[in-house]
Amino acid sequence: MDLVPLVLEGHVPAIARMISRAEAAYPEAADALAEIYKHAGQAHIVGITGVPGAGKSTLVSALIKALASAGHKVGVVAVDPSSPFSGGAILGDRVRMSDAAATSGAFVRSMATRGNLGGLARSTLEAVDILDAAGYSPVIIETVGVGQDEVEVASAAHTIVVLSAPGLGDDIQAIKAGILEIADIHAVSKSDKPEAAATVAALQGMMALGAAMTDTRWNPPILAVSSLSGDRVRELVDAISKHWTHLQENDELCGRRHSIARTRILATARHLFQRKFDEGDGSLDGYVEAVIRRAIDPSAAARLLLGWEKNT
Amino acid sequence: MDLVPLVLEGHVPAIARMISRAEAAYPEAADALAEIYKHAGQAHIVGITGVPGAGKSTLVSALIKALASAGHKVGVVAVDPSSPFSGGAILGDRVRMSDAAATSGAFVRSMATRGNLGGLARSTLEAVDILDAAGYSPVIIETVGVGQDEVEVASAAHTIVVLSAPGLGDDIQAIKAGILEIADIHAVSKSDKPEAAATVAALQGMMALGAAMTDTRWNPPILAVSSLSGDRVRELVDAISKHWTHLQENDELCGRRHSIARTRILATARHLFQRKFDEGDGSLDGYVEAVIRRAIDPSAAARLLLGWEKNT
Repeated sequence: MDLVPLVLEGHVPAIARMISRAEAAYPEAADALAEIYKHAGQAHIVGITGVPGAGKSTLVSALIKALASAGHKVGVVAVDPSSPFSGGAILGDRVRMSDAAATSGAFVRSMATRGNLGGLARSTLEAVDILDAAGYSPVIIETVGVGQDEVEVASAAHTIVVLSAPGLGDDIQAIKAGILEIADIHAVSKSDKPEAAATVAALQGMMALGAAMTDTRWNPPILAVSSLSGDRVRELVDAISKHWTHLQENDELCGRRHSIARTRILATARHLFQRKFDEGDGSLDGYVEAVIRRAIDPSAAARLLLGWEKNT
Repeated sequence: MDLVPLVLEGHVPAIARMISRAEAAYPEAADALAEIYKHAGQAHIVGITGVPGAGKSTLVSALIKALASAGHKVGVVAVDPSSPFSGGAILGDRVRMSDAAATSGAFVRSMATRGNLGGLARSTLEAVDILDAAGYSPVIIETVGVGQDEVEVASAAHTIVVLSAPGLGDDIQAIKAGILEIADIHAVSKSDKPEAAATVAALQGMMALGAAMTDTRWNPPILAVSSLSGDRVRELVDAISKHWTHLQENDELCGRRHSIARTRILATARHLFQRKFDEGDGSLDGYVEAVIRRAIDPSAAARLLLGWEKNT
């Protein structure tokens, strides 16, 4: 069944089914996804990222409500590194988020990754395309900001919100994760906690450091929010929309679209390459044996596999 | 200067310099690394992984002492996702670990990754080769077990220890990270804390679940340790060495070597592919423009880039 016309009309069951096809990476879905990609490109893509336990899902629920009440048709794609052990996504946070979705006309989808290297970035961004083409905007990508694949997904957003939690281990954890520097907006969760002020101060200190090193015109604001009381969620919504306007008015959107497209092509290529062998392409086997025998080293094997060097 | 003979003799400054060359991915180092790879293969590679804050570095320090006093020449490669913001590895834990190293003849090296996609796995495993060829065994890889690259690095070990901390957020965090299922040994840190028993019980419950689904002969033990008091660190050392014996006696080492070689070749190939374009190969530019114009979708661009499809 051709789901594309239904997706473009915003038909919810068709959107859900199309995302499932993207997630399963059915080869038959490739044409439909290519067609959908051509119709996407209008939505404001917002990444919400932060270490586990920072309160991302709760914040996203609060954002859905605030954005929906301002008249937006909100899409959410939550990336959930699932365990082959548990066989799928862990519920809990997701259930809470669905409540927010149900009352607001938002579309929320949690992606399971099942250890599929590089597939995370690919299927998540295809889900974003689907919601984009279906008329949702903003489309929020919620991702655990740890690990290079996850950072790559977050980097595919026009506006990146990095969420830090007060007193979660120490503030250095977020630095370790290597995501603070990609923030367009810093949010500090649980602003009702007394430790929140220290986290804000730590971020301000780091921003001062960063300012000396970079030369961006957008100065990332730092906002302490409480997702539970809703305190300052409105300000966060304003900051997100201000950043979108900033990108458009300062001719920065082109550059960002360029880096997003570049990252995405390379991530997809790496994924397709990996999948070829995961699906049993036998051309790898001889190299594996040679590497185990230590006749060649892994780099030489990799070059042979890429066709960059001839087998001698 | 040809460092290889010195590395093979165990000359410490030569080892350190060789690891720096691997980390910097100097093309001139490729021949030396290929030579070193051929001399490696004797060491027992042990992965220590767990979410940020689980206490990995402290445990590794305790392991270094216990292993060194049992007569082992211990090598450690710690993977430290560094931030371009901070310009390098965060100190602190590392400093503590160096104390342990200094008193025991162990070699400890912290790798910075600097956002180099896939480079993490490659340079880390090259550092492991160098220590292996220099006669260190076991060689411990300490890695944050979150993110697919990191899980991939951990999977390159013969024996994988997954460390869980009592009361860190909730126990589900470790499940989310998707690393529990790769454990050969489960360790629970901070056994002096009263919450440690609950974490052990949670792991036991999950193991019971897992046992129904898999058919492995090795039954991963669960050990609550205290790195500070040294309590049960000895038992952990015994479990690690028991697993190594198990692999050798039950003909499982071959299978593991096969999957390690396979993973490593593919990770290296993905890294070389990515690096080609990060270094400015211009063949990508036209595809980026076409994707931004939405003339083609990212999957089509990726296939063209891989040379799997002809430009029409």
